[in-house]
Amino acid sequence: MFYFYAMNRTQLFEQIKKKNSYLCVGLDTDLEKIPKHLLKTDDPVFEFNKQIIDATKEFCVAYKPNTAFYEALGAKGWESLKKTLDYIPKECFTIADAKRGDIGNTSSLYARAFFQQMNFDSITVAPYMGEDSVKPFLEFKDKWVILLIHTSNKGADDFQLLETREGKFLFEEVIFASQRWATADQMMYVVGATQAGKIEEIRRLAPDHFFLVPGVGAQGGDLEAVSKAGMNEQCGLLVNSSRAIIYASAKEDFAEAASREAKAVQQQMGSLLQKHISL
Amino acid sequence: MFYFYAMNRTQLFEQIKKKNSYLCVGLDTDLEKIPKHLLKTDDPVFEFNKQIIDATKEFCVAYKPNTAFYEALGAKGWESLKKTLDYIPKECFTIADAKRGDIGNTSSLYARAFFQQMNFDSITVAPYMGEDSVKPFLEFKDKWVILLIHTSNKGADDFQLLETREGKFLFEEVIFASQRWATADQMMYVVGATQAGKIEEIRRLAPDHFFLVPGVGAQGGDLEAVSKAGMNEQCGLLVNSSRAIIYASAKEDFAEAASREAKAVQQQMGSLLQKHISL
Repeated sequence: MFYFYAMNRTQLFEQIKKKNSYLCVGLDTDLEKIPKHLLKTDDPVFEFNKQIIDATKEFCVAYKPNTAFYEALGAKGWESLKKTLDYIPKECFTIADAKRGDIGNTSSLYARAFFQQMNFDSITVAPYMGEDSVKPFLEFKDKWVILLIHTSNKGADDFQLLETREGKFLFEEVIFASQRWATADQMMYVVGATQAGKIEEIRRLAPDHFFLVPGVGAQGGDLEAVSKAGMNEQCGLLVNSSRAIIYASAKEDFAEAASREAKAVQQQMGSLLQKHISL
Repeated sequence: MFYFYAMNRTQLFEQIKKKNSYLCVGLDTDLEKIPKHLLKTDDPVFEFNKQIIDATKEFCVAYKPNTAFYEALGAKGWESLKKTLDYIPKECFTIADAKRGDIGNTSSLYARAFFQQMNFDSITVAPYMGEDSVKPFLEFKDKWVILLIHTSNKGADDFQLLETREGKFLFEEVIFASQRWATADQMMYVVGATQAGKIEEIRRLAPDHFFLVPGVGAQGGDLEAVSKAGMNEQCGLLVNSSRAIIYASAKEDFAEAASREAKAVQQQMGSLLQKHISL
């Protein structure tokens, strides 16, 4: 039957300490990009994910399948997603990057889809429709909402940086409102990596929340700035890398290449953890 | 192979005139609410939808499956959705009520999922992530984006009614921005039915756009106010009704009951069309 257990904040931090890593691997699995030899298998998407998971699980604490990649394949993609989720080791935090959000009874169904029908620990949620569009996800007390705050894309500025009459940005209003809906034990924030200054600002407004940070490449630079700006005493960061890891090689050695990339990021993260918080 | 044709604005208006209706039937099909005798069939969701479509297609111009209901059933639900879409007559406009929106390459995949993998005419999209999260849907030149503007739920006010420094509501900023991205030939707006005053205001800002209006019951009142406030010369409204029609009866006569309800709404719509625009 269904079980609704998800990793809590303390357990997540334990994993971060154990693995010396706050890496999240984004499973943006695309039939056009995976190595050609896999296309002969029954379920190429799952086969790819399985090998990527085996190759990287030692170096990351979370996996984030982006649901669009699976939906684009229809019912078959949905099956690959479910199999992938079931394959991810229990000590890894799982994120359905689905960016859902709708009126109450519809959000309840999305919650059921991702927390029951599948057993994700968390889901990314868009805030535009307000409190009652987010609450149904929070009714699963052991699950997590990861709310979009300030995203990493260019269009993020169109609305998220609109200034209200009170002199606040829209994204700040979303932070303030959402802190009335749930605590840092049930909510995380999506905060893009493109501006370390913004991360620092958001960290001041939300000292305890975990941030899911997309948009960091495998190569240093950004990661250091992001970590300096965003880390709190419990690390408080899950930094996602998708393409740089999973498509590190397009050939038969893709899993080894992914492992190498993930390990390189993990090692840098290990140093940054030592530098910013005393483990 | 794939074809990307969707009904254009003129053709939609033709259907509205032909059927004397601007009713959209929401296919929010829930295994817990459909008549029990259907549960014995191979695909109860599709079986229910099929009979609902047969019973209502004469009285409505559009169908709007809410994707959450299908996702909650996993891969099987996804199949029921595809079969449902294929069953909807070509002269009916189809709306994937999916409220998607993500960074560019991810939105492209959602567009592929709903416009190619399935062949929906349109999809509802959430604006929080800005222009580049919406544009990939617009690259399908014959398809439609239905952008969330002012929704019908209570939480709508949390952010949509925030006032910017220039004295505009966030939802107005979304209207202004989106009009730079596409014309009324490729974009519609979701405008909740709960406040006729808001509909009137939004109509002033967007004289030509079709509005998808959820939140109107089968019983008059609202419909009249919504139509008065929102109708333009090409009707410009798709008024959605879900539960009041599809669950008009929970027994074996559900299809006839749905037909009766849809017909009652259609007749009222016929009068309203006569009253507000000369057909």
